[in-house]
Amino acid sequence: MKTYLDCIPCFFRQGLEAARMGTEDEEKQRKVLDEIAKELPQIPLNSTPPEMGRKIHKIVRRIAGSSDPYKKTKDKYNKIAIRLYPKLRGRVEKAHDPLLMGIRVAIAGNIIDFGVNTHIDLEQEIEQILKQDFAIFDYISFKKALEHTDELLCIADNSSEVAFDRILIELITEKLNKKVIYVVREKPIINDATIEDALFCGIDKVARIISSGSDGPGTFLSLATNEFRAYFNRAELIISKGQGNYETLSEEDKPIFFLLKAKCPVIAKDLGCKVGDIVLRSL
Amino acid sequence: MKTYLDCIPCFFRQGLEAARMGTEDEEKQRKVLDEIAKELPQIPLNSTPPEMGRKIHKIVRRIAGSSDPYKKTKDKYNKIAIRLYPKLRGRVEKAHDPLLMGIRVAIAGNIIDFGVNTHIDLEQEIEQILKQDFAIFDYISFKKALEHTDELLCIADNSSEVAFDRILIELITEKLNKKVIYVVREKPIINDATIEDALFCGIDKVARIISSGSDGPGTFLSLATNEFRAYFNRAELIISKGQGNYETLSEEDKPIFFLLKAKCPVIAKDLGCKVGDIVLRSL
Repeated sequence: MKTYLDCIPCFFRQGLEAARMGTEDEEKQRKVLDEIAKELPQIPLNSTPPEMGRKIHKIVRRIAGSSDPYKKTKDKYNKIAIRLYPKLRGRVEKAHDPLLMGIRVAIAGNIIDFGVNTHIDLEQEIEQILKQDFAIFDYISFKKALEHTDELLCIADNSSEVAFDRILIELITEKLNKKVIYVVREKPIINDATIEDALFCGIDKVARIISSGSDGPGTFLSLATNEFRAYFNRAELIISKGQGNYETLSEEDKPIFFLLKAKCPVIAKDLGCKVGDIVLRSL
Repeated sequence: MKTYLDCIPCFFRQGLEAARMGTEDEEKQRKVLDEIAKELPQIPLNSTPPEMGRKIHKIVRRIAGSSDPYKKTKDKYNKIAIRLYPKLRGRVEKAHDPLLMGIRVAIAGNIIDFGVNTHIDLEQEIEQILKQDFAIFDYISFKKALEHTDELLCIADNSSEVAFDRILIELITEKLNKKVIYVVREKPIINDATIEDALFCGIDKVARIISSGSDGPGTFLSLATNEFRAYFNRAELIISKGQGNYETLSEEDKPIFFLLKAKCPVIAKDLGCKVGDIVLRSL
């Protein structure tokens, strides 16, 4: 997905949010915004928004002097997510269509975000996604692609989703006898999943974990490790989770299925759906 | 009011909105954002947000090649406002406390904004403000100040509010025998009221119209005409309407009463109220 002009105010909003996460010093926060302003004129609109996201968070890390400003918050939400795992696994096992319920659970993981205040809100929101109609629903082609492959890639999004992804992966590996490669970011970026998060949620017990090589909030093929590139090129089915991976992979000619909840108006428009919609979309 | 860091993403949002109002050329819209980015590091945080607003709209006018990008939209909303005038005047005349209802009507005018889609929405929203509780309500001191003066200043905000302000001004001039000086912007800026808008709504029949000298979305004493400065300095009561005037005058040691609906989270926080609240606040 290209960068829309509407992304530009949002870059500053994200930069400020990240700067506040990294430092309490208002002068440093201001410096972050000034440096983003300096970068702005160099950004071609045909680059993807996470490319600018990568630059923004590099600026934040440098000025705040912190390699992982989101660490504490990530740890907190990882623990919340893992507590929800047994109940949601039970829901999938008992579902009329466990695969579809597994997909819904994997999308629901995406709502554990820093805005959520209470567990009650969270469980209510998850419940809603488990019942919500899909705005885009390429489920038949997904099932067909799954049937015809022995191995699939699942590209992770936020750290707190990992516990939810595990439920879908367990279903695919244990019940459908497929092999899953779980792809995480190379370095911490915002609250995106890294190898530590995947290990915390025990993904190593059900899938092979590899790094995409990315240090930005998306999957950049230009930064891909040889290992990831090899898996990506031969894949017959790729599950891509969340907005950042959609933004960076939406123009790749690959058998990718995007699982996400549209939280941003620009992405919703690009997808042809509304903010709040849930999506299972093939390329 | 100082510029908060949260104002910075909003400067880009406003700039993009204004650029789109001024030109359909996406490259020019992008150029507007790049130029705002160039200005950003020069902005001291102790300047008021409308000072940057002034610069932003200068950039837009220059790049879009239009001296008044909002003209068409302003004209449309002026006509909508004037159609509502007789009915609202009747409401004030019949009210238990006409002065308070006049103040409510003057605040209600502030919601005629570019986001409003239908007349039904608009009338419903006005109705709500006519009944809504005030979050800050310095009405007793307002009445006292009004009682002790023969002349007052009313500093206008949006063009579409002028018809609503006229109702309050008529009450003050006709029933209470006071003289009103109605202060408008020197040049078109966003949808702010200029002399043309004041004349369109017949303010000249009930008040003396003067310019504040401002070509920005607020009242800048540094740009004040001699006439405005003289009135401002001797005033025993000043009604300041809307957010832009609050932002630029909130630190002046003058008998100013701010009438507004808080639409922005930063201003709401500065005032100590919530977004959506209505306010009659003395300094």
